[in-house]
Amino acid sequence: MIVKKLHEVPFADTTGYEKVSKQVVLGPEDGSKEIVLRYFTLEPGGASPYHSHDFPHLVKVERGSGVHQDKDKKQTPVQAGDFVFVPDNEVHNFFNVGREPFEFICIVPGRGES
Amino acid sequence: MIVKKLHEVPFADTTGYEKVSKQVVLGPEDGSKEIVLRYFTLEPGGASPYHSHDFPHLVKVERGSGVHQDKDKKQTPVQAGDFVFVPDNEVHNFFNVGREPFEFICIVPGRGES
Repeated sequence: MIVKKLHEVPFADTTGYEKVSKQVVLGPEDGSKEIVLRYFTLEPGGASPYHSHDFPHLVKVERGSGVHQDKDKKQTPVQAGDFVFVPDNEVHNFFNVGREPFEFICIVPGRGES
Repeated sequence: MIVKKLHEVPFADTTGYEKVSKQVVLGPEDGSKEIVLRYFTLEPGGASPYHSHDFPHLVKVERGSGVHQDKDKKQTPVQAGDFVFVPDNEVHNFFNVGREPFEFICIVPGRGES
């Protein structure tokens, strides 16, 4: 069994992403190869890439508010406390239109973090 | 894409468990068959079963504080904000020794919620 606090988790490489930080909180290095839990912080103006992939996202918004953009560019506001499911192969991204950091947990199967 | 708030999620059957409630926040009914995100609330005195199974738990404590008990009955306090990884086949449970509800997200692969 492993217990961690967020501030103990190092930041992952997010070269090429502006205003985005990422922490792999529970993942392969902890022995969790099947499911990986990452923590993202999007500063104001920050966005995750608009893309799709062959794995789902299960998201819980931890702090602030942001926008989920879907395959048709439909925008849905999300805020702290919301849970979001993004199915496999669905084009999407998240971005922060607010003045505060937008922070969320994003859970993926192991193949989504390798 | 699906967005939900916790209060919209019905309570699952927890017959046989005392002082434990469970909500399947994102799961098969939402199309999330590979990974399932559940929300547990343990009232004071509540405990999850002391057991093992062939799948991991990825846990984030949302509110309150409790105890993780491992295969050797070693007890580790956990509190709001902590992330916990319980590997496959490791005997464990969680219980609430406090006066407030102890609430946590518990993520499992699909075979852990069927």
